[in-house]
Amino acid sequence: MGEQRVPLVSLLLAYVVLNQGSCSVSGTNVPGYQTRYVEVQVDHFSFANSDTFQLRYLVNDTYFKPGGPVFLYTGNEGDIEDFVKNTGLLIEMAPRFGAMVIFAEHRYYGQSLPYGQDSFKDPAHLGYLTSTQALADFAELIVHLKETICGTEDSPVFAFGGSYGGMLAAWIRMKYPHLVAGSLASAASIFQFPGITDCEAYSHVATRTFQKSGAGCPEIIRSSWDVIQDLGKTDPGLRKLTSMFSLCTPLTTDDMPTLVDWLVNLWMIYALIDYPYPANFLTPLPAWPVKEACQLITSHEDVVSGVAAAAKLYFNFTGQTACLDISQPYYGGLAWQYQACTEQIEPICSDGVNDMFPPIPWDLAAFSQACYERWKVRPRPYWAVTEYWGRNISAASNIIFSNGDLDPWSVGCVLKSLSDSLVAIVMEDAAHHLDLRPSDPADPPSVVKARAQEAAIIKKWIQEYHSATTR
Amino acid sequence: MGEQRVPLVSLLLAYVVLNQGSCSVSGTNVPGYQTRYVEVQVDHFSFANSDTFQLRYLVNDTYFKPGGPVFLYTGNEGDIEDFVKNTGLLIEMAPRFGAMVIFAEHRYYGQSLPYGQDSFKDPAHLGYLTSTQALADFAELIVHLKETICGTEDSPVFAFGGSYGGMLAAWIRMKYPHLVAGSLASAASIFQFPGITDCEAYSHVATRTFQKSGAGCPEIIRSSWDVIQDLGKTDPGLRKLTSMFSLCTPLTTDDMPTLVDWLVNLWMIYALIDYPYPANFLTPLPAWPVKEACQLITSHEDVVSGVAAAAKLYFNFTGQTACLDISQPYYGGLAWQYQACTEQIEPICSDGVNDMFPPIPWDLAAFSQACYERWKVRPRPYWAVTEYWGRNISAASNIIFSNGDLDPWSVGCVLKSLSDSLVAIVMEDAAHHLDLRPSDPADPPSVVKARAQEAAIIKKWIQEYHSATTR
Repeated sequence: MGEQRVPLVSLLLAYVVLNQGSCSVSGTNVPGYQTRYVEVQVDHFSFANSDTFQLRYLVNDTYFKPGGPVFLYTGNEGDIEDFVKNTGLLIEMAPRFGAMVIFAEHRYYGQSLPYGQDSFKDPAHLGYLTSTQALADFAELIVHLKETICGTEDSPVFAFGGSYGGMLAAWIRMKYPHLVAGSLASAASIFQFPGITDCEAYSHVATRTFQKSGAGCPEIIRSSWDVIQDLGKTDPGLRKLTSMFSLCTPLTTDDMPTLVDWLVNLWMIYALIDYPYPANFLTPLPAWPVKEACQLITSHEDVVSGVAAAAKLYFNFTGQTACLDISQPYYGGLAWQYQACTEQIEPICSDGVNDMFPPIPWDLAAFSQACYERWKVRPRPYWAVTEYWGRNISAASNIIFSNGDLDPWSVGCVLKSLSDSLVAIVMEDAAHHLDLRPSDPADPPSVVKARAQEAAIIKKWIQEYHSATTR
Repeated sequence: MGEQRVPLVSLLLAYVVLNQGSCSVSGTNVPGYQTRYVEVQVDHFSFANSDTFQLRYLVNDTYFKPGGPVFLYTGNEGDIEDFVKNTGLLIEMAPRFGAMVIFAEHRYYGQSLPYGQDSFKDPAHLGYLTSTQALADFAELIVHLKETICGTEDSPVFAFGGSYGGMLAAWIRMKYPHLVAGSLASAASIFQFPGITDCEAYSHVATRTFQKSGAGCPEIIRSSWDVIQDLGKTDPGLRKLTSMFSLCTPLTTDDMPTLVDWLVNLWMIYALIDYPYPANFLTPLPAWPVKEACQLITSHEDVVSGVAAAAKLYFNFTGQTACLDISQPYYGGLAWQYQACTEQIEPICSDGVNDMFPPIPWDLAAFSQACYERWKVRPRPYWAVTEYWGRNISAASNIIFSNGDLDPWSVGCVLKSLSDSLVAIVMEDAAHHLDLRPSDPADPPSVVKARAQEAAIIKKWIQEYHSATTR
């Protein structure tokens, strides 16, 4: 296709993109939830485009008692049904609070396509895919909910989200606090923007997570890069790599940068989803997958054999995959790639010394050029810092920031409480937004404790909400 | 032109529109100020349009000491030079604080036209005229100032504004509190939106201001409508009205609704600009113009003669006007009329019983239709309440809301303090944002006191800013 590949880090940004749903308009596949739609503006902030579209949301009123809170998941980059399936906290807390549970889909994902099949055609159709527009959608949705669902008129609304959805949960409280009484922002890397977080930090934590999971494991990974590059210089070496990784297509010298990117991404993702029980978040994996991967890596005599075995664990745990395809992105569709090329510029780099990765600089100019060639738009790398307050969020209130210490994205998150009502929770031995996932006997104690703390804070905010409105 | 007139209330919204500047790019005509420009996005919130334009701002660093505060006037609907000339508070406070004074022009006014002469051509060009885009311009400007003006890196920025500019000053602190340490929002009618303020309230206060200024004055105005309407039913009566009001064009029966609108607007504006000294805000007027108008109204035997004399005071105080033209709007250009037809929907109505006006209902459907016929866009009447928090602004901080009790717009303003840092000041005997105007010996004591209180609060916020950043 002649497309230049977008540099590594931008792919990485698509960290929790699940399979995108097809465009068919069908009922919910999630038991207990009804599918509804709200009509919203394609462009909330100008009158040059007056088009509207239907935004999907899923409602579960099983436990709702009139006047009880509304727990609203601010959907991120994927079909909203997948987030219902991967999120447990809202519905598990609902009976205690008599809460309505709602999952709102993010525009340009799942069924919420402003221009149907044409949504990805060109910048004129795709350009309205921004977080600010999405927050305005959710604001309109909350107004709509209160007007259409009996018993919610006086309900406090709490926003929940993980990862990019966690950023949205934090941001909606910052930008629309009259509509949202408080937020739980899990793994919300709101500080992971240019100029306010060191781009190497992510790589450090990913390396640390591997270190924790297997003595000597990061060192072997670090040593693998030269071995792999050397193999890539000769035809026999390329054939060996093709065979060891069970690649679908014979490797050429030109493919070597792709192979390296693919492996770098692999390790970074492993650290992200290092859950304590078998899960199928981005891919089916066993419990503590980083430990499993490190066991494979450290138990092979040959460095590349170990690395290849760990790759196959990720891509073929179920044994259904005939061969590995390094040209396939790990996750995620066009929409997130576009967001990562426009506003969600979250730099990641590595130096090969303080981390287990090859040296990869953060090169904004090259990144911008690749984005332009792919999407015909240039990134606005500093806009998110202006729009969402950079590191100076002290004027905000009623946000819980929860973070797993295994999760490399935690480096861009709020790790220390900033006030009585900007509460940071760090969960030991926890990966990416583990607290949001369904409870499991294997959850570490830190996560069990975090969920109890989150519920207690929300209870307090509900009381404050009612005492303020009756005053 | 076949254009339908926009209903009364929308014209009224253009309450402080000054003469719009021409499009020529020239230096400032205001002594002490330099003209500068910052490049900003036409559309900050989507990537469908990547155009940029030059936003004008005026800088006065006469009193600036490095590290001192930046006093930023968030310009409203007019050429920014006119706001410099009509605003005294910033520059009068500057020496005491060692402050930089900056006046930022609002997009689509003065020289800050995103598409030059084409800016008003059609919705595709004009559609980016919204308050949210303007706030983002100012946010970008603040980032730009800190990058380009030595000594402002650690400066707290305070936003100042009156009327619509006061709304912007409040809203920028609400939406971008990391960039703005506090705001003085004078005559900021942020509650004057559909559903959150009674549309009759404005008319009540306008009537009260006339009552204060002349016993029996509102009663005569109230009685004038039937007399005028009766005269409008016959040819001799129409000739009499044409003569009494010295109209440029002979009045016809069809013109009668226009005449009534024109008079309703006249009284509403009088109340607005009832300053204690001769001023030239919208028009040259003597001190306490409502009192002067009431004296004319109550001293004539004939009701219509008195009304006509008061009209001539407004339009011809200097004696330079040959005749009065009821087809001319009082103020304001296309840009504000467009804003009043899109987002700035601030309903005003009257019942003719509790106020001195004829009964004028607030008719959203008719209003919407007139806007569509004029601009090819429909109002989004409830969007401002969603975007700017309705009456529930308690999550905000560090905003002073100052209000004059003569000013009918005060009914949509914050009249009671909501917290230690959301401070309301009501100034007795003061008209529209009198505190912002240059000091004058005739200022009522309430205004002198308000300015001292404002300075004291800003001083406190500067201290808090520095103690927070050095913590």
